[in-house]
Amino acid sequence: MRNIKLTIEYDGTDFNGWQVQAKTQRTVQGEIEKALNIILKKKTRIYGSGRTDSGVHAFGQVAHFKTSSPMPCEVLNRALNANLPPDIIIHDVTDVPLNFHAQYNAKKKTYCYTILNRVCPCAINRRFCTHIPCRLNFTAMRHASKQLLGEHDFKSFAASNPAKRGKKESTVRRVSQIHLKKKGDYLTIEIEANGFLYKMVRNIVGTLILIGTGKLAKDSIARILEERDRSFAGETAPALGLCLMEVKY
Amino acid sequence: MRNIKLTIEYDGTDFNGWQVQAKTQRTVQGEIEKALNIILKKKTRIYGSGRTDSGVHAFGQVAHFKTSSPMPCEVLNRALNANLPPDIIIHDVTDVPLNFHAQYNAKKKTYCYTILNRVCPCAINRRFCTHIPCRLNFTAMRHASKQLLGEHDFKSFAASNPAKRGKKESTVRRVSQIHLKKKGDYLTIEIEANGFLYKMVRNIVGTLILIGTGKLAKDSIARILEERDRSFAGETAPALGLCLMEVKY
Repeated sequence: MRNIKLTIEYDGTDFNGWQVQAKTQRTVQGEIEKALNIILKKKTRIYGSGRTDSGVHAFGQVAHFKTSSPMPCEVLNRALNANLPPDIIIHDVTDVPLNFHAQYNAKKKTYCYTILNRVCPCAINRRFCTHIPCRLNFTAMRHASKQLLGEHDFKSFAASNPAKRGKKESTVRRVSQIHLKKKGDYLTIEIEANGFLYKMVRNIVGTLILIGTGKLAKDSIARILEERDRSFAGETAPALGLCLMEVKY
Repeated sequence: MRNIKLTIEYDGTDFNGWQVQAKTQRTVQGEIEKALNIILKKKTRIYGSGRTDSGVHAFGQVAHFKTSSPMPCEVLNRALNANLPPDIIIHDVTDVPLNFHAQYNAKKKTYCYTILNRVCPCAINRRFCTHIPCRLNFTAMRHASKQLLGEHDFKSFAASNPAKRGKKESTVRRVSQIHLKKKGDYLTIEIEANGFLYKMVRNIVGTLILIGTGKLAKDSIARILEERDRSFAGETAPALGLCLMEVKY
């Protein structure tokens, strides 16, 4: 038996997220399993580092699966890319120890959120950024973002629907890096943490946008964290601006 | 009567090019005219700086049209973007002198061609670059590209189908700038000229790719130009890597 790790890029626009759901829904996991079933001639289940929602992209999603096939990794990589639709690409296929688990062994994840901040929307990059026409105060947003660094209870930034997670699951996470960058009219928010609660990045971004527009004070993050109540944070930012960049083990 | 200039961005992937053709074909010109007809409540014809082929993108295509509408440019710009599909965005709407013509007054155009040069294709940027898996010799390509600078007869790089242009039309053009850049696995070729023959950029890129793979010597451009024969140049590079960046007047 072998355990194989995949590094996966996808354009999430036309998927109902990562996770296999009803058979009629097009999912990233579903498409990769379909390709593996063809290549390995055996029903194969893959396990991702975590699900991404409908419309969210990935540059470096990671998944693993078990197989008894002797096919070399390089051959498997080419075969996968030949059998996958163009909106999924496998960057890398590697043998890993049998006890490696893409989700449970993940030490850190990095997400990047992209905002186009100008009056005029864009056509070419429209699938990969959220358009905010009103002027955002970048300095205030950057100042605010630093208050997220370190270990906090992020309950205020978790999806309010508890059905999406175990009720007793800890909502404490450690944000190790947060970088806001501006390049022309584009603003990117890159966050690295030891884990993310459901919709946490999009809720953080929604809150930073409120701070950028002046609807929330630039020092409000600390208070929102303290409240441990979803209703204090901003709206969930749209999925299309979000990309899972890297999973570290 | 007013004459109005539009600056247009589009993702050419899902268009049958710029120019209105049969009514069933989706074209950029057709979509903009449809939106103008709704906004101005009058059949309006627009004139582009030149057509772009099926699959070719634009960041700064220019077109003009005549109207007697008193609608302010800013209002017209917003109305257009509200009535256009998401793969077309109008960046700018300006009043210009009545004798301005988007095609005949164009002094220079800049095109950019993007190549992804690595074994693995990409998912996120797949609509906007041509994937070349075999290693390209960037230095040889850059060296070769410099031979295109200046005024030359580009007949060897024009589409061989003369029906696409007047038989007696000059094939002499002046390339004022050509820049090859490498950023990670991406290679871009930016060309500015006082005009381009039909498929000229894509034929130049196809030839530079041949030079990059070593199938053509790095000094062959001068000879290809001299031959004035399409069969000496490389294959036409795919449309999806090409983008019309700017038209200068």
